[in-house]
Amino acid sequence: MNDLQKEELTKILHECMEACNHCYDACLQEEDVNMMANCIRLDRECADICGFTEQALQRDTPFLEELLKVCETVCKACADECRQHSHDHCRHCAEMCDRCAEACRSYQGM
Amino acid sequence: MNDLQKEELTKILHECMEACNHCYDACLQEEDVNMMANCIRLDRECADICGFTEQALQRDTPFLEELLKVCETVCKACADECRQHSHDHCRHCAEMCDRCAEACRSYQGM
Amino acid sequence: MNDLQKEELTKILHECMEACNHCYDACLQEEDVNMMANCIRLDRECADICGFTEQALQRDTPFLEELLKVCETVCKACADECRQHSHDHCRHCAEMCDRCAEACRSYQGM
Amino acid sequence: MNDLQKEELTKILHECMEACNHCYDACLQEEDVNMMANCIRLDRECADICGFTEQALQRDTPFLEELLKVCETVCKACADECRQHSHDHCRHCAEMCDRCAEACRSYQGM
Repeated sequence: MNDLQKEELTKILHECMEACNHCYDACLQEEDVNMMANCIRLDRECADICGFTEQALQRDTPFLEELLKVCETVCKACADECRQHSHDHCRHCAEMCDRCAEACRSYQGM
Repeated sequence: MNDLQKEELTKILHECMEACNHCYDACLQEEDVNMMANCIRLDRECADICGFTEQALQRDTPFLEELLKVCETVCKACADECRQHSHDHCRHCAEMCDRCAEACRSYQGM
Repeated sequence: MNDLQKEELTKILHECMEACNHCYDACLQEEDVNMMANCIRLDRECADICGFTEQALQRDTPFLEELLKVCETVCKACADECRQHSHDHCRHCAEMCDRCAEACRSYQGM
Repeated sequence: MNDLQKEELTKILHECMEACNHCYDACLQEEDVNMMANCIRLDRECADICGFTEQALQRDTPFLEELLKVCETVCKACADECRQHSHDHCRHCAEMCDRCAEACRSYQGM
């Protein structure tokens, strides 16, 4: 992976983390929080692992491959959950998670 | 702060983080999640800062004093919220947060 | 703090974290690691608290004020250490830390 | 995985994180830091992922399986590095990492 690719992956991980944190915050303020319980949970899981992986990438971790695998799985699950809700923050989050899962997949083995 | 005191503070921070994570997980499964929204939020804030401070303490951070101040404030707020709910996990969490806030306060300036 | 200000603070915290992680990684590869020991330590402290504060800001933490205080202190200490070294990564890191400390200070009380 | 098994795994992850943070801190104070550069790096990688996985376990993450795989790999690498050094903190850390890698392996698929 060259520097440009690292920069791109960092950016995608970061924007996914941001979308997940915003969605988490917004879900907790929805009228029907009950319906958002699983979305809240997955938003946090996804923000946490994306943030972790981004920092690991920045310090040139020897374990990027393994982290990208976890990240891909978590992003997919979070996207699937968010897609089931019509709130703007969920729609946006699903989009960012899909993009991040795709990036995590394509950067494995590089 | 001597080694025994460090060990005691580590233990208290750790048990507080654990209680907060359990309370967070249990709140998301309650029948009325709406009523638990603020508890979910504060449980996470508190677990995150306690975990962060514990790790910083273990690596002998030069910023323990500052971290204990934040930790004390967050633990107090989480205890106040948890005390308003009658679930066992909230009761236990309030207790652990009170104890941790007290420890964070008493270890400042050591 | 309005949305534009939040975005700006997020960006500054994030670029500081990135510079600290790069500096940490580069310091560990320097010829004379002995001389960089304190820089390595402070780079990590600073990256960790900046990353933590950024995520807390994104989820609209009620404890931003307290976190900005810690962050300001850590950024100042890291900038002071980095300024003592002539490596490019240290120079750049000192600059980012100074800017972040200044932002953390000016956003307190908003 | 039943509650007793969770508690045991939590404890092992936690003691590994603690040993890694102590080893990291001690390595930075060794006379010959150059020789410890890779140990410092791996200690941090290992403490970070163990701490992350422990917290994820406490909040009943749906991604435990994936995290245990990463954790096993990182613990093994850290144990291999620590074993090459004769310092007490490295010896102890190697032991804790070996034990944690073994636990991460045996808890997968439960």
